[in-house]
Amino acid sequence: MPNKTAPDSTRRSERSRRAILDAALELVAESGFAKLTIEAIAARAGVGKQTIYRWWPSKAAVLFEACVPDGGDPRAVELPDTGDIEADLKTVLRATVDELNDPRLAAPTRALAAESQSDQDLAAMLTERVLEPQLQAYVRRFEAAQEAGQIAEGIDLRIALELLVGPLFHRWMTRTLPVTHAYAETVADLALRGLRPR
Amino acid sequence: MPNKTAPDSTRRSERSRRAILDAALELVAESGFAKLTIEAIAARAGVGKQTIYRWWPSKAAVLFEACVPDGGDPRAVELPDTGDIEADLKTVLRATVDELNDPRLAAPTRALAAESQSDQDLAAMLTERVLEPQLQAYVRRFEAAQEAGQIAEGIDLRIALELLVGPLFHRWMTRTLPVTHAYAETVADLALRGLRPR
Repeated sequence: MPNKTAPDSTRRSERSRRAILDAALELVAESGFAKLTIEAIAARAGVGKQTIYRWWPSKAAVLFEACVPDGGDPRAVELPDTGDIEADLKTVLRATVDELNDPRLAAPTRALAAESQSDQDLAAMLTERVLEPQLQAYVRRFEAAQEAGQIAEGIDLRIALELLVGPLFHRWMTRTLPVTHAYAETVADLALRGLRPR
Repeated sequence: MPNKTAPDSTRRSERSRRAILDAALELVAESGFAKLTIEAIAARAGVGKQTIYRWWPSKAAVLFEACVPDGGDPRAVELPDTGDIEADLKTVLRATVDELNDPRLAAPTRALAAESQSDQDLAAMLTERVLEPQLQAYVRRFEAAQEAGQIAEGIDLRIALELLVGPLFHRWMTRTLPVTHAYAETVADLALRGLRPR
């Protein structure tokens, strides 16, 4: 059965990879990023340390892949377009609120945001593969809304979208007040007041 | 000269305190928060470790005091009021841009923001003593503008101000694009389009 060797090995690798990513997510949720080590991930996942070092350069890289399973495929990011910019933005922002409040995602996302303040490579990877593709999806949805006459001409759309995502991010990072659906909808209402044609 | 003992001791304490805070700022700028230790601060400041432990519970607390010299006096925070909300907001936002881009402040501010993602005590201290007093100063300035007929009635001002500070904070934290005066002014223009009376 010589042909079975490769598939078996691939399946085993995939099982190890998944176990490593799950272990990293669990450990960050339990004890935080500062206490996360490659040793602890290896022990929890039931693999050798070398297996992890062979695939990832750092614990931040492991966590990044655990949070961004497809490595951040820009084509996968598209905002809904029902023809109603207000409804579509509120749909997206409510989903964002749910993600920010998801206890399984909160610890690793905060850890990556924190770590990227001092780790420039991680920051560049997050921006290029995750953040900027999302922001460009907002730009494309705004462009469609502009063509439909729902957003005023002459507005810098790359900045306009930051009036929507900036407040949510700020409130979540600083924990000043709760990030709720009602809050996100008010942010969308206030921003759209300024972005609509007169 | 028995009366001279107390003043001398106070002066010595103040000199040590200042040396410790300066050392913390320098070390964070040089090597980052992760590598900052009480030992290194003590060595750089020329004091004993115990002197630091006597005054501060953690390296984050030292850095917090170094960045917020007056411990965050809420009464000290007031926005300019020339009677022109647009001009005043742009003045404040340009100053915020300058602070965010100040290389001396950048490293410790990013370190505190990062550390507060996992250190809840530090997060609460930052919010209560630094951030929320600043946000309340925006609310008061907006209230005056509302009375002057420059901001529409019925707007949630605590959320409205986040359309100004949120985008700057988001762009700075994520390093997606440069944080410039021109950018801050466009943010103010777009936000005010939505906040002005119709």
